[in-house]
Amino acid sequence: MRQSQLFTKTRKEAPKDEVAKNAQLLIRAGFIHKEMAGVYSLLPLGLRVLERINRVIRDEMNAIGGQEMLMSALQSKELWEQTDRWSDGVVDNWFKTQLKGGGEVGLGFTHEEPLTNIMRSHIHSYADLPKLAYQIQWKFRNEERAKSGILRGREFLMKDLYTFARTEDEHTELYEGAATAYAKIFTRLGIGERTYRTFASGGVFSKYSHEFQCLSNVGEDTIYVHEGKRMAINKEVMNAEVLADLGVAESELKEQKAIEVGNIFSLGTRFSEALGLTYKDSAGKDVPVVMGSYGIGSSRMVGVIAEVLSDEKGLIWPKEVAPYNAHLIVIHGNEDVRAEADRMYELLTENGIDVLYDDRDARAGEKFADADLIGIPLRIVVSEKTIQAGGAEVTERASASSSLVPESELIEYLKR
Amino acid sequence: MRQSQLFTKTRKEAPKDEVAKNAQLLIRAGFIHKEMAGVYSLLPLGLRVLERINRVIRDEMNAIGGQEMLMSALQSKELWEQTDRWSDGVVDNWFKTQLKGGGEVGLGFTHEEPLTNIMRSHIHSYADLPKLAYQIQWKFRNEERAKSGILRGREFLMKDLYTFARTEDEHTELYEGAATAYAKIFTRLGIGERTYRTFASGGVFSKYSHEFQCLSNVGEDTIYVHEGKRMAINKEVMNAEVLADLGVAESELKEQKAIEVGNIFSLGTRFSEALGLTYKDSAGKDVPVVMGSYGIGSSRMVGVIAEVLSDEKGLIWPKEVAPYNAHLIVIHGNEDVRAEADRMYELLTENGIDVLYDDRDARAGEKFADADLIGIPLRIVVSEKTIQAGGAEVTERASASSSLVPESELIEYLKR
Repeated sequence: MRQSQLFTKTRKEAPKDEVAKNAQLLIRAGFIHKEMAGVYSLLPLGLRVLERINRVIRDEMNAIGGQEMLMSALQSKELWEQTDRWSDGVVDNWFKTQLKGGGEVGLGFTHEEPLTNIMRSHIHSYADLPKLAYQIQWKFRNEERAKSGILRGREFLMKDLYTFARTEDEHTELYEGAATAYAKIFTRLGIGERTYRTFASGGVFSKYSHEFQCLSNVGEDTIYVHEGKRMAINKEVMNAEVLADLGVAESELKEQKAIEVGNIFSLGTRFSEALGLTYKDSAGKDVPVVMGSYGIGSSRMVGVIAEVLSDEKGLIWPKEVAPYNAHLIVIHGNEDVRAEADRMYELLTENGIDVLYDDRDARAGEKFADADLIGIPLRIVVSEKTIQAGGAEVTERASASSSLVPESELIEYLKR
Repeated sequence: MRQSQLFTKTRKEAPKDEVAKNAQLLIRAGFIHKEMAGVYSLLPLGLRVLERINRVIRDEMNAIGGQEMLMSALQSKELWEQTDRWSDGVVDNWFKTQLKGGGEVGLGFTHEEPLTNIMRSHIHSYADLPKLAYQIQWKFRNEERAKSGILRGREFLMKDLYTFARTEDEHTELYEGAATAYAKIFTRLGIGERTYRTFASGGVFSKYSHEFQCLSNVGEDTIYVHEGKRMAINKEVMNAEVLADLGVAESELKEQKAIEVGNIFSLGTRFSEALGLTYKDSAGKDVPVVMGSYGIGSSRMVGVIAEVLSDEKGLIWPKEVAPYNAHLIVIHGNEDVRAEADRMYELLTENGIDVLYDDRDARAGEKFADADLIGIPLRIVVSEKTIQAGGAEVTERASASSSLVPESELIEYLKR
């Protein structure tokens, strides 16, 4: 993509009403636009990052047998009344609206009810289980305060996986499989080292649920990290009984602020019993299906990565989620340099490298500042100097380390 | 994908309350699930078709310089009041809801307002134009009646492109470019021959807009087709003046029912003036941007294709949108046949062919009926007979023509 054609521009200042660092940087770099508190539109660079995050999530969900689908946002009152989750007294963040011709509908804040209902048409016998289904769908939550940028949206994109098992044991296997997939996802997204599987409160059907918490000073959660075991305990459940359960001593734990980037729940038969999702076991008896649900906010991930991997100059995207592989910058004194950079752009593109090419008429300093702000992992500079040296200057955004790479080695270097 | 693992099942009967053929077939084949009138969830096969339709649309939008982005569903009252489109008296199909903490928001039924507003941050001078931006985003329309299956949804996926030009002439070029891209899209989606660019009412800023109308008996529109010129006139604007404008005689036209599959509008400066989107021309004067908008309902397209390309046995997907390239069916008398089919499944998959593999323990007749209902373009049968003949029987779903293809030629045959 030629940057002169890209419709977004960077800006020096974020809007005054934007207090969250993630949103400030993403707005300044032209990745997102604020529509209202907690509601953002994704501009081309931002959508590319979101789609690359989704691709990683999709890969790992498919690898454990997840089947992708997509449920509606509009939700039927009658369905949610059956599980007692329609009333605003029970669920306090519904958006609700009226159908013309009568009737109230809600905007999905999660999708256990509709999927359990759908599965009634497709699961009948023990041979139909286990099954894993997931979607990547916008959720709507009527948050009273929404001041964390895209970390906590009123409208946000979520990958939600649901598992359907015959027994508790089968469920536990699926649950641990999903937890392992989650760890892989966070590693690929570049935040694996600072993300911990965290014990949190369970509910009626299991003693604990698990969150995946990413260390960050702006996190809304407080967790106690056990570095040796690579796990943590949410402050909300931290007590002597939990420490005993997990076999850890309080002295081994370190208190940290963290952002929740994923959560996994055992649902037991809460939804299958309420909605009548049963299977016939080998003896012909109707048995309620054992369920689990597993969420990752993929638009929130854009904000988390922006928040924890940036520096004072701007964003720093990990390789797997960067909007482009490389940012090609031409510093042009004359037409020959520009022609050489054009040729380089063609060469890289033909070799399957996604390049943002800063071909604008602008000063070198402005181009470098924009490149730092946008945060593409590798910057490639073509100038009179690099042409004379027979190559291009390649700089890593994260480390700022720089080297002159001969053209004959450039493609291989970039594909590493 | 092994069909024994696919979580959906086909069914003999559609739900009694579903009157539209497209939805009846799509539900019976396990592509969609009805949540309520005009609201459907997409099951794995349906989502695959939708994503393949989106890929075609995306290709052609990118080819004309469109930049993909994604705007929010939640819409600000204050913004839409500026163009006088907030009031229910002006726009009669808003879904509106309340923010906690006060304030009303709408669910986007189209996105001219937010995009024009976004562009105010990015378009300043004549050098920033022209620009094309599009999204593929769910729209919400509070339809009083919704009885056409997924042809007319209360919640539906739309690709909407918007163009921003300096002058009327530049706009006309972009408009015609978009129209040409639309024709390519409908051809690739398999409905090109029965789809006509149709003159429709324009509005304040242009005498005509254009619809793309696909012939179908269940269409809600009546159009007059001029076969020689491959164009049509919507009944709503049909009169002597229009005939004179277009240089056609009424006797050359044929009345037909049709489904609108796309529309393109010249917006002039209606939105740019109301919202203050201007650029500085070469003389430094502020000039309002000339806009156009261009829609294709991609979830509607799933329904249109299901409606017009099906037969009494079921769905018939064109190659570019089929959920899988091939449907491999094993008719197994013994373990050897199944082993041979398993090997064939691996072979096809390794060669990059997307295969749905009916490995279920079921009668041949049931498998054939399901394959016809699901409508994948090519059916490949492996049985004792085909193994003895050294190949597989390949049948085209559309023509029902069948041939025994030697294994050595199979990959090439399928990739044609």
